[in-house]
Amino acid sequence: MASRDVQPLTSIEPLRWEGDCLTVIDQRQLPQKLAWLKLRTVAEVAQAIEQMAVRGAPLIGIVAGYGIALAALSDPRAASLRRAMDRLSRTRPTARNLFTTLERFEHLLQHPQLAAELLLNEACAIQRADLKASASIAELAAEILSAPGWALTICNTGALATGGGGTALGLLVEGCRRGLLDGVYVCETRPLLQGARLTCWELARLGVPFTLLPDSAAASLIAGGEVAAVVTGADRIARNGDTANKIGTRMLAESANFNGVPFYVAAPATTFDPGAESGADITIEQRSRAEVLELTWQPLLPPDYAVYNPAFDITEGRMITAFATDRGLISAAQLEDSDIWN
Amino acid sequence: MASRDVQPLTSIEPLRWEGDCLTVIDQRQLPQKLAWLKLRTVAEVAQAIEQMAVRGAPLIGIVAGYGIALAALSDPRAASLRRAMDRLSRTRPTARNLFTTLERFEHLLQHPQLAAELLLNEACAIQRADLKASASIAELAAEILSAPGWALTICNTGALATGGGGTALGLLVEGCRRGLLDGVYVCETRPLLQGARLTCWELARLGVPFTLLPDSAAASLIAGGEVAAVVTGADRIARNGDTANKIGTRMLAESANFNGVPFYVAAPATTFDPGAESGADITIEQRSRAEVLELTWQPLLPPDYAVYNPAFDITEGRMITAFATDRGLISAAQLEDSDIWN
Repeated sequence: MASRDVQPLTSIEPLRWEGDCLTVIDQRQLPQKLAWLKLRTVAEVAQAIEQMAVRGAPLIGIVAGYGIALAALSDPRAASLRRAMDRLSRTRPTARNLFTTLERFEHLLQHPQLAAELLLNEACAIQRADLKASASIAELAAEILSAPGWALTICNTGALATGGGGTALGLLVEGCRRGLLDGVYVCETRPLLQGARLTCWELARLGVPFTLLPDSAAASLIAGGEVAAVVTGADRIARNGDTANKIGTRMLAESANFNGVPFYVAAPATTFDPGAESGADITIEQRSRAEVLELTWQPLLPPDYAVYNPAFDITEGRMITAFATDRGLISAAQLEDSDIWN
Repeated sequence: MASRDVQPLTSIEPLRWEGDCLTVIDQRQLPQKLAWLKLRTVAEVAQAIEQMAVRGAPLIGIVAGYGIALAALSDPRAASLRRAMDRLSRTRPTARNLFTTLERFEHLLQHPQLAAELLLNEACAIQRADLKASASIAELAAEILSAPGWALTICNTGALATGGGGTALGLLVEGCRRGLLDGVYVCETRPLLQGARLTCWELARLGVPFTLLPDSAAASLIAGGEVAAVVTGADRIARNGDTANKIGTRMLAESANFNGVPFYVAAPATTFDPGAESGADITIEQRSRAEVLELTWQPLLPPDYAVYNPAFDITEGRMITAFATDRGLISAAQLEDSDIWN
């Protein structure tokens, strides 16, 4: 297959720093509306993360960095910065990248000349590093994909979720650009429909062929031989390879394993958690029942129904073929001894 | 656990025959509104089946019988009845019960004194038989379930789907009534949300504890040891046990198999297809993209997105622990030689 005329990956920018204000795409409003939110305080940044106006583990890590920079601009003293970091640490528990960012700033607090500029530079450095990580991960398309075939993914792991072109989706888009992949099956990703609302929007803009499906239809596609590879992102990866990612990821891994299809997790080093031995050490965020009882924020069902609504699930390391990282492709067996932890 | 105060199963009647008219619950409007549709011609019955105002394999089989009776009331000649049967046969291809009904009427067409009354009696007999089948299937709760524990199901297989208390759901409700089950996990069942809209509505009315979940969250519940058994209905079962049922059923079977949880299919004999050797002989209905692109009929996404929207999938016989039928519990290994085919 000839390589496709796919638009540049970085044409979608989910955030911009504009002097004294962080401007982000309000991802809750896509695809109906491309609207921007101006965040001027760390409280506003924390709220945007909690309400998922911004989401995606790498992007959360970047936005949190700018949140601390905003706090420093109003008061650069250590106590003010600690309050900001504490507030951010309580937004969402699962995405490792948020805590990777907080740990980087923790080191900076020791700096003898603590200044807003220093912290802003750090936020910019985190964003630049993630742009580079996305590019490195995309390069692995050549190692994972070979035409003809379609890959299947879940949630949104593209430009909207990162500082660059994305993790799993960035790799798949690069695969299409190089003619290594014919298209992308997109799980709609209930309850908040990040696949349907965000991933399809990105792929349509980029000119990448895609087909949307209800999450529960993935098993019949995989069993029917229609999926060459399943590639997902990650929110946190433990030392043994157990991976927390968007709810539904484990279902895809079970189906891929059951039907002999390779299952890859794409993530930058900032998503790997050296402090978690296994999935048992990962906190899974439970979100509100309203997300399930309302369809994109329109009431559908009685508000008192009991709901099981975890934002993430754990895919065991043994179920994962390999990790596509900014330090190369790492098999689950090699993971423990790899340099990703350093 | 003490047995629960659960309401009588038959308190929900999805259809009533009233002299010259079939009145059915318009299931598209639940749970917001309990509205009834009056169907006076076979064309109206066929449309109600196609648009899923009535759905559920056993109920489709019953409603089709009354559709032929309506045709006979306006013109009882064989040619008129053949046209009615032909129209009904083109509504939905997968539910075996529809064709079981059509085959029963095919025999009646040979009758020397073809009369509307004869055909109406046959429709009533099909409804009564399904009421009895539901009761027999519910009895198997004692063989499958033992407290404490919750079972997981998908779609709606209760009173709204049958002529009695239901297949899988009827069995689970009976289990709760007898204190053999603590509650029911309900997969919401995208795209048309029969689990969220219909099964939760039935269980809430009956006083059965339930928890609703996005379909993709089932794997993490099952892996977490929260599910004692998965029990689903069926739309068509082949001789080797391969079972077509609501999209997502295969995903649940894979997850149950992967995690060592029993997986049961509950269905009356009318759902078993002696003419299908395996799943390869079962036609899977593909439904409109609008069902996925619109959320309960409100536009959400661009209408030209490509969508994979099969109404059903195939769960292989080897993945099924046993079939709960109105002729008893039949293991997948015994199925081929059982009397369910006679």
